[in-house]
Amino acid sequence: MADFNVRTIALVGLGLISGSLARALKSSDWDGRLIAWGPREPSLKRGLGLGVIDDYSLNLNDIIEQADLIVIGAPPIATAEMIATLTSRLIDSGRRPIITDLASIKGYVVDAVKVDYPMFVPGHPIAGSEHSGVEHADEALFTGREIILTPSAITDPSAVETVTAMWALTGAYIRQMSVEAHDAMLAASSHMPHIVSYALTGALERDEADPMIHGGGALRDMTRIAGSDPLMWTDIAITNRDALLEAIDQFEAEIKILRAMVDAQDADAMRAYFATCRAHRRAHDNILNPLLQGPREETS
Amino acid sequence: MADFNVRTIALVGLGLISGSLARALKSSDWDGRLIAWGPREPSLKRGLGLGVIDDYSLNLNDIIEQADLIVIGAPPIATAEMIATLTSRLIDSGRRPIITDLASIKGYVVDAVKVDYPMFVPGHPIAGSEHSGVEHADEALFTGREIILTPSAITDPSAVETVTAMWALTGAYIRQMSVEAHDAMLAASSHMPHIVSYALTGALERDEADPMIHGGGALRDMTRIAGSDPLMWTDIAITNRDALLEAIDQFEAEIKILRAMVDAQDADAMRAYFATCRAHRRAHDNILNPLLQGPREETS
Repeated sequence: MADFNVRTIALVGLGLISGSLARALKSSDWDGRLIAWGPREPSLKRGLGLGVIDDYSLNLNDIIEQADLIVIGAPPIATAEMIATLTSRLIDSGRRPIITDLASIKGYVVDAVKVDYPMFVPGHPIAGSEHSGVEHADEALFTGREIILTPSAITDPSAVETVTAMWALTGAYIRQMSVEAHDAMLAASSHMPHIVSYALTGALERDEADPMIHGGGALRDMTRIAGSDPLMWTDIAITNRDALLEAIDQFEAEIKILRAMVDAQDADAMRAYFATCRAHRRAHDNILNPLLQGPREETS
Repeated sequence: MADFNVRTIALVGLGLISGSLARALKSSDWDGRLIAWGPREPSLKRGLGLGVIDDYSLNLNDIIEQADLIVIGAPPIATAEMIATLTSRLIDSGRRPIITDLASIKGYVVDAVKVDYPMFVPGHPIAGSEHSGVEHADEALFTGREIILTPSAITDPSAVETVTAMWALTGAYIRQMSVEAHDAMLAASSHMPHIVSYALTGALERDEADPMIHGGGALRDMTRIAGSDPLMWTDIAITNRDALLEAIDQFEAEIKILRAMVDAQDADAMRAYFATCRAHRRAHDNILNPLLQGPREETS
């Protein structure tokens, strides 16, 4: 594994994920410096007080000038805007620090880079929590989790190596895939399931009989993620539109298949379909039900 | 509340639900007799050994002849067949014990009664567990849960009173509604959500990229009930076809609405839709997340 010999990391945006990365690095044998910029001083002050970061500034240029590696921690649209700003500014300045990001959509972010910037390594740690904010930063958040990097043909291999070496210090697995494969994967494994939960909850909300008051464990689980942050999920639906539409279409095709089986009262077809689903779910029980194997941070 | 002065209850089918009813009655101040019939002797023997029942027979007529109240505990199709058999047989014999059932579909069961039998009170306790079998029978299974009775115009009010008095001894709430309202409610609150979970799992199973291996808490919850028993859910889909199709259509209409918003990147509409869902989910958190308030039996 390559050594991680970056001296100064700048966190652009300080929240749960970037704060957890900072805590994981501080608990490793890396002895560099962590500095942060953010739009609101209270979060930065809190991060400094908690020992998550070593210094902060409200002046973005201040922070950027000191950094060997910049980590952008923000929702997809804000990340894309920040990437565009930083890469243009750095191209003008002549400095070429490595940049990576944490956004859950990669195509939208990558498309925002309007200049050639080979030191940008798009990234997405698949980890989270029902909490937010730097005060919930957790050094173990990435242990055993997946970090996906989506370098392109123009990405500098040494930048990919450095970002990989950084994430390796957190105990995560690092995988590379294309931007398109990443966005399709996330659409299927996370974004479309959220839309499905919203649609189910929307249908129940519109029903005058209020079926939710009779709900059991099935409804509890199927509607839980419809309690997610409306702003964040609007952002995701906007920025991953094409892959999400495709995943919704694949889901709708299955609903149509099942509806036809119910309509025809085709018992053999239903039993076979349901049995295939049960087998597929059970084959992934170990990944999907980590709590069976001991405590692990909840993701949403 | 009316007294429950039935002397002998016959359980036709002995499993988790009928066994739990038996245990709840035995732990109440009711001092009658509980006898059971079932197609397999080992379950009956186990029930007798555990003190859940006082006696059993493999001869259905034996049990029926002694009963003042018959409780049929079986899946919907088997319940419907048993109701048809018993009511015809009793009409011929001249005896009129009260009959009730526990099946989760009411229309299909009620339609199976081909003779006038006013002493039949269709029922459905909305309670369950991930376990099955009389060995998991639990006297507290119905505490605070909902029992729905669906008497019709021909049902004898005294039979409804007696069945209500029996359930009151278990600590459950007893509600009456029409067969149609019951089946539509269950289609929306349980059966359609299962079809949605199956369709989602089916779409993931068909995806060669195997998105489930990247799944987090969202997928865990959204696919859990796709691990349910394929035979039971085929039975339910067959017997509640019309109400289920209607609930699927309502869900599909919502998916279409959301798909159009995603397609148009209509941020305002998505934010409003998602916020409505979140508010509706949160308004029902106390019902859907009973574990927040302390231990309670898991339902599926």
